[in-house]
Amino acid sequence: MKMEFLKKLDISGLIPRMGQTSSAPGSVKYVGVDRVTPVKLHVIDYNENSLTEKDPSEISECMPVKEEGEIKWLNISGVHDETIIHDVGERFGIHPLVMEDIANTTQRPKVEDHDDYIFLVVKMAYLRPEDGELQVEQVSLLIGKNYVISLQEKEGDILDSLRERLRNNKGRLRKMGSDYLMYGILDTIVDNYFSVIESIGEQMEDTEEQLLQSASQETLNSIYQLKRELMFLHKSIWPMREVINSLQRDDFELIDKTTFLYLRDVYDHAIQVAETLEIFREMSSGMLDLYLSTVSNRLNEVMKVLTIFAAIFIPLTFIAGIYGMNFKFMPELEWRYGYAIWWAVIILVTFGMFIYFKRKRWL
Amino acid sequence: MKMEFLKKLDISGLIPRMGQTSSAPGSVKYVGVDRVTPVKLHVIDYNENSLTEKDPSEISECMPVKEEGEIKWLNISGVHDETIIHDVGERFGIHPLVMEDIANTTQRPKVEDHDDYIFLVVKMAYLRPEDGELQVEQVSLLIGKNYVISLQEKEGDILDSLRERLRNNKGRLRKMGSDYLMYGILDTIVDNYFSVIESIGEQMEDTEEQLLQSASQETLNSIYQLKRELMFLHKSIWPMREVINSLQRDDFELIDKTTFLYLRDVYDHAIQVAETLEIFREMSSGMLDLYLSTVSNRLNEVMKVLTIFAAIFIPLTFIAGIYGMNFKFMPELEWRYGYAIWWAVIILVTFGMFIYFKRKRWL
Amino acid sequence: MKMEFLKKLDISGLIPRMGQTSSAPGSVKYVGVDRVTPVKLHVIDYNENSLTEKDPSEISECMPVKEEGEIKWLNISGVHDETIIHDVGERFGIHPLVMEDIANTTQRPKVEDHDDYIFLVVKMAYLRPEDGELQVEQVSLLIGKNYVISLQEKEGDILDSLRERLRNNKGRLRKMGSDYLMYGILDTIVDNYFSVIESIGEQMEDTEEQLLQSASQETLNSIYQLKRELMFLHKSIWPMREVINSLQRDDFELIDKTTFLYLRDVYDHAIQVAETLEIFREMSSGMLDLYLSTVSNRLNEVMKVLTIFAAIFIPLTFIAGIYGMNFKFMPELEWRYGYAIWWAVIILVTFGMFIYFKRKRWL
Amino acid sequence: MKMEFLKKLDISGLIPRMGQTSSAPGSVKYVGVDRVTPVKLHVIDYNENSLTEKDPSEISECMPVKEEGEIKWLNISGVHDETIIHDVGERFGIHPLVMEDIANTTQRPKVEDHDDYIFLVVKMAYLRPEDGELQVEQVSLLIGKNYVISLQEKEGDILDSLRERLRNNKGRLRKMGSDYLMYGILDTIVDNYFSVIESIGEQMEDTEEQLLQSASQETLNSIYQLKRELMFLHKSIWPMREVINSLQRDDFELIDKTTFLYLRDVYDHAIQVAETLEIFREMSSGMLDLYLSTVSNRLNEVMKVLTIFAAIFIPLTFIAGIYGMNFKFMPELEWRYGYAIWWAVIILVTFGMFIYFKRKRWL
Amino acid sequence: MKMEFLKKLDISGLIPRMGQTSSAPGSVKYVGVDRVTPVKLHVIDYNENSLTEKDPSEISECMPVKEEGEIKWLNISGVHDETIIHDVGERFGIHPLVMEDIANTTQRPKVEDHDDYIFLVVKMAYLRPEDGELQVEQVSLLIGKNYVISLQEKEGDILDSLRERLRNNKGRLRKMGSDYLMYGILDTIVDNYFSVIESIGEQMEDTEEQLLQSASQETLNSIYQLKRELMFLHKSIWPMREVINSLQRDDFELIDKTTFLYLRDVYDHAIQVAETLEIFREMSSGMLDLYLSTVSNRLNEVMKVLTIFAAIFIPLTFIAGIYGMNFKFMPELEWRYGYAIWWAVIILVTFGMFIYFKRKRWL
Repeated sequence: MKMEFLKKLDISGLIPRMGQTSSAPGSVKYVGVDRVTPVKLHVIDYNENSLTEKDPSEISECMPVKEEGEIKWLNISGVHDETIIHDVGERFGIHPLVMEDIANTTQRPKVEDHDDYIFLVVKMAYLRPEDGELQVEQVSLLIGKNYVISLQEKEGDILDSLRERLRNNKGRLRKMGSDYLMYGILDTIVDNYFSVIESIGEQMEDTEEQLLQSASQETLNSIYQLKRELMFLHKSIWPMREVINSLQRDDFELIDKTTFLYLRDVYDHAIQVAETLEIFREMSSGMLDLYLSTVSNRLNEVMKVLTIFAAIFIPLTFIAGIYGMNFKFMPELEWRYGYAIWWAVIILVTFGMFIYFKRKRWL
Repeated sequence: MKMEFLKKLDISGLIPRMGQTSSAPGSVKYVGVDRVTPVKLHVIDYNENSLTEKDPSEISECMPVKEEGEIKWLNISGVHDETIIHDVGERFGIHPLVMEDIANTTQRPKVEDHDDYIFLVVKMAYLRPEDGELQVEQVSLLIGKNYVISLQEKEGDILDSLRERLRNNKGRLRKMGSDYLMYGILDTIVDNYFSVIESIGEQMEDTEEQLLQSASQETLNSIYQLKRELMFLHKSIWPMREVINSLQRDDFELIDKTTFLYLRDVYDHAIQVAETLEIFREMSSGMLDLYLSTVSNRLNEVMKVLTIFAAIFIPLTFIAGIYGMNFKFMPELEWRYGYAIWWAVIILVTFGMFIYFKRKRWL
Repeated sequence: MKMEFLKKLDISGLIPRMGQTSSAPGSVKYVGVDRVTPVKLHVIDYNENSLTEKDPSEISECMPVKEEGEIKWLNISGVHDETIIHDVGERFGIHPLVMEDIANTTQRPKVEDHDDYIFLVVKMAYLRPEDGELQVEQVSLLIGKNYVISLQEKEGDILDSLRERLRNNKGRLRKMGSDYLMYGILDTIVDNYFSVIESIGEQMEDTEEQLLQSASQETLNSIYQLKRELMFLHKSIWPMREVINSLQRDDFELIDKTTFLYLRDVYDHAIQVAETLEIFREMSSGMLDLYLSTVSNRLNEVMKVLTIFAAIFIPLTFIAGIYGMNFKFMPELEWRYGYAIWWAVIILVTFGMFIYFKRKRWL
Repeated sequence: MKMEFLKKLDISGLIPRMGQTSSAPGSVKYVGVDRVTPVKLHVIDYNENSLTEKDPSEISECMPVKEEGEIKWLNISGVHDETIIHDVGERFGIHPLVMEDIANTTQRPKVEDHDDYIFLVVKMAYLRPEDGELQVEQVSLLIGKNYVISLQEKEGDILDSLRERLRNNKGRLRKMGSDYLMYGILDTIVDNYFSVIESIGEQMEDTEEQLLQSASQETLNSIYQLKRELMFLHKSIWPMREVINSLQRDDFELIDKTTFLYLRDVYDHAIQVAETLEIFREMSSGMLDLYLSTVSNRLNEVMKVLTIFAAIFIPLTFIAGIYGMNFKFMPELEWRYGYAIWWAVIILVTFGMFIYFKRKRWL
Repeated sequence: MKMEFLKKLDISGLIPRMGQTSSAPGSVKYVGVDRVTPVKLHVIDYNENSLTEKDPSEISECMPVKEEGEIKWLNISGVHDETIIHDVGERFGIHPLVMEDIANTTQRPKVEDHDDYIFLVVKMAYLRPEDGELQVEQVSLLIGKNYVISLQEKEGDILDSLRERLRNNKGRLRKMGSDYLMYGILDTIVDNYFSVIESIGEQMEDTEEQLLQSASQETLNSIYQLKRELMFLHKSIWPMREVINSLQRDDFELIDKTTFLYLRDVYDHAIQVAETLEIFREMSSGMLDLYLSTVSNRLNEVMKVLTIFAAIFIPLTFIAGIYGMNFKFMPELEWRYGYAIWWAVIILVTFGMFIYFKRKRWL
């Protein structure tokens, strides 16, 4: 039987699909699965007083980066286009190995300090709006003195709330530097894990409900699915935790001391996500144990029913078989009350069996 | 079959229920489940000689904090009311991120030093008086030079014994500063874990008793329930241990050296709680193993009974069937002692089977 | 079925039985189970040349502690009597929290340096002479410049061999200070774990013998029992190892450099105990695996027997049933050799089945 | 039944096959399995402007190593020939213990700094072109000021892409020193793990597909095979990770600072390989759990079918048996509608059973 | 059934058999099992030019140790003779606690620096020549400025190859000091683990072969046996690794810098042994999993056979039973083609069942 309800998990963000071998180091090569969506650019230039937005079709339209007082946030959706990445690399003076890492969407979360910019790789988790599927996607961040470049493959809307806050000039966002915008992006990404966790928490409750009521093969597949999703989320958040910790602890020249308190807050959230996932993993293991034990118990119940039926009726059938024999000389057959006595014996045996199984606590 | 005896665990204190996304950092937002109970304030002002208590309805009634010689303990039940938290934050000069953390009741235990106050988050475990259910609740503590503010969602009575000691002026409590009151609160919370542990210990004994006597599906659910409760307690006490350790080890200006010895004592107790939980977890895993093995053993027993019945009576039935046939020429049927010989054969076969199963040690 | 052979383990030394809540810190409160045995005091005063012993009924009779050249070893059995502990505390200048820890017999092994005395908590393991049950008991040690106070709940005879060596003036014991007496006590306690381990080793051999011969539910319970005893011993020796390590490594003023070599020796022994327990735990896990696999194998064997019987005789019974039918027109019944042919068919079918099961390697 | 589809894994690169005992230290002795292939030498001398290649038959033909501006890359396939290794050792001034390690193809990945050369041992993983079998082979590297010697047992073509890049003068390879060539070799070896991982990823998808559709013994063997391959890869990449880390972190005089960034990149890739393997291992464990649970579920289904058949027909057979008896006085047999009533009873009983099993949710 | 093929492992070298309690510290007491073999002494005095050997019967005959230029290697087989150990201790100035450790053959591998000598305890693993049984034995080494004393209980021939090299003056052995002889002994002992590992590797291949072909209870016992042997080897080599590491890393005055490189080589080998054992342990766990799953699969197969037989023949038997009834009015019995129709029904039912089980993929 094909179990079609066991949906495939999109793990393209974690495991490379194509060989990365035999290319010179520093060669930019995209390794993800989807190559059709066209690249989209979005740029916001803002300072405390003004904000301009546009959707250019080329990098050149986004330039220049102003020296003072204005922050440029360039968002690129579609890292499969190596020309764009090259273009960005040249204009912003990015190291070739960094450009290679951006194109490689199976990168592990990490942070690298390149003196005049910070290179960050993080994993974004979200539920695809159309079908609620869990998606894990890589986001690369380049943070310069007054620019932030964010790059990912698919166009997501997680960062839209942040853009809205920028436009509405809510909070301190417009007053601060590029490090605070970086904090804003990280905060939004980490906080989005909570809604993923909440949805998984609901799945767990459903599965547990199912487990306690019917415990079918479908339940088993749900548990298996849950365990796998939790594993992938765990593998995403765990190294991100370290990355954020190193941002607030190590000495990055581009990050202001006042931003540290905020980064510590994101770090606390990341730990909370990681620990909740840990709890979920233990719970799902417990559910698997309970499932297996329940199945064992049921087998026991089934076998008891079979044994009781067999043990009662097989001897009775034998006793009936005796008097179905055609021996010439079977005195019992001739007795006046032979048949009545036979019934008495049958009832007695049945009753005896009942007591026997009652004593064994099978009934 | 619905197993209603598997009670839901109130884990609201550990896992967030509502999305925490898309709000600006520092925005105070409550994330727990229960929003109906009205906020209750309780304030105690004391020094060595006098103590006054009141239940104000607004924060302003609790002010001011006197400069010297008097400690103010403000207790707030109901952190879902963001206005109150804001009010407290303004009057006591609390950082917005701290206020956000207080409202977020799914926080991980932690300690933060904000120079003129210490921010502590701990988890309180208690058994709900009405039904003995395990509850884990977050308590936030703000410790200033001469005030302590304790905040939690539900109104608990665990700290009542401490208040009683304050009123009765027992021990050193009234003579010492706000750091000693903080110690008193932590000590009371940690010690309360012992009564929870004691109650779980009794549950474990009951479950083990059950396990050795009947080992039904109910026993299995009890073990599963126990494992889950132990996991939640473990996840609460483990980070608290670290928090208390950092209080006695790190250099907090607001904590006096003389309080260190007392904090080390609380730390020892927290370790003891953590280790006892560890022992309980190993014991519950052992119980699950024993359960599974017992079920396997029983299946074996059931199958042996079935096999013995089937193996004895099926051949006998066949032998009876032979002489129930209506062949014209069956010489045995005509024999004078045919029927008697038949019985002899039956008894012999039965006896042979008996010896066979005796040798196999099934009987 | 009640399994009475699964004896209860006395774990009073590890897990608190009564709530420790709501008492002021420093209040001495006994938390063990047994409160009836009267307190026994025993005191030995010795130097290189002389030794006096007595069993006083009050602490005052044990005083004073001489300044120079004489060591006082005071042993107190029965820490449930809070007055005695208070009395000791006052006369020897012990901190109230230490007195609280002594009364709390569920303490974790630890060492505390209080400048003019060292406070040690260790766990003593022994087999109760009357029934060979494993007992784990807490021993508290207070080591001053020229006194050693040992406190435990039950009166044990493990330290008797040490007393005998003192009386006989064997070895260096009488020539050295209180730190060497402390070493002697620790050495005796750790070495006693070896005899416990030896006895458990014998139990393991018995259980394995049983496992390989019959593997009943009783064997399973023995393994479970073993695993639990090993867990408790592990939880006792593991922190003791750390305690002894810190004694030989940290800078305690009361411990002479010459005693370090001896403490390292005790430390080596403690590690050896811990590692042997580790080996035993792995062995007992292996035994459980073997048990479960053996049970699975047996089930397979049982099922094969059932299947062979059923698969051979059920078809035969059907064939016999055919010719027991009363149809008017059944030509076979009239044949001269019908019955003989029937027997030929029966034998053929049986033989065919035999070959079938032989090929499947079930016979 | 012999399962021939469970192919043998070539683990010669990990576990020694022949005793290595009783030879003097420093004696060069090959310990691998295959000793027949003749040794092949290949040497490339290059600088920024020129490149010469040859396949000499003796080491002497490869000499001398020029002092300045030219890098010599000597590749030796076939470390079973101890004379060659001795010859290399003498000409390049290699320590006897290093020569012993080269011949010992079961070495653990490691790095040793011998002042005027670095000795590196790494494990190369590749799929044998002829049959796609996973192969793990040891590669030893000797990196001097202007030479690199690579030694392995089998002639592989993984490094061919690197040679091609050298010949085509692509990238920075020809412009840099021997340390950059070492980086190139390590990068090629680590990147080749990705194609191995990709192939294993495909195997895992196939196995999972199988698992969800049929779950036979063959599936089980595939999972077992996968787990074993993953274990071997894990044991190869794990110490390599440390080796590469120490290259970029420790102070090797022969490695230029500018190469560090590149080594960090290889290190990142090695971590990515290690983590993907970790994910695969967890996934394969999950698949085993799912397999076992599925088998348990099926057993349950089989038993239910058996029980339903037995429980319905065994009682019916008994009822038929009753009226096959030959008692003289059986009033029912004489009744006009006896047979019809009998059929009514049969249908009633069958129907009752149906409802019973429906209620038990077995149907 | 007694499984005699499960051979007892000689673990005397790891677990103490007799109580070590109640003896004064420093008292030399043998704790092994075998006390009958007489003690054998063997002494080799050598320098670069000459070598003399003898088998004295007393320690006095081995003396004196020459001051300069000659190394004395004294080997003692039989540490159960406390007089000999005492004698050695006195003549070479050994600390009483060291003498106690030598007699205690259950010591954990360790190294102690006693200024004018080093005390080493290691575990030697070898296969007993007569029956190929795995033996683990303790070897104690005392390394002085120009002597090495090796002590073990049983007379082994592992070190014979080393003696031969001494006699033949091969390699650097005769030219170097006592530290190099120590290295030679350690190297020989560690290398001997490889031949043990090789033999276990062959056992594993056999067991796996068995597992894939028949998977009987015997296979299970082989796996259990393997796991246990691997555990004991692991417990022997793990602490040895640390000991050798500390020799090459810590600052021992008696060990020359030039020997460090050689000790690092032994250390590498010890790690290789430890890791190979780790691989073997994982493989044996995998084999156990495979075994259990295979048994589950077989049970499934057995049950299917039973169910198919039962489900086909039990209904048929019932149908036959119907027409064996003796009701007066059974119209079918009178029909001309009753019997033929009956056969038609039987064949139809059988065929239907076949299709049913075919669809369920049981056939």
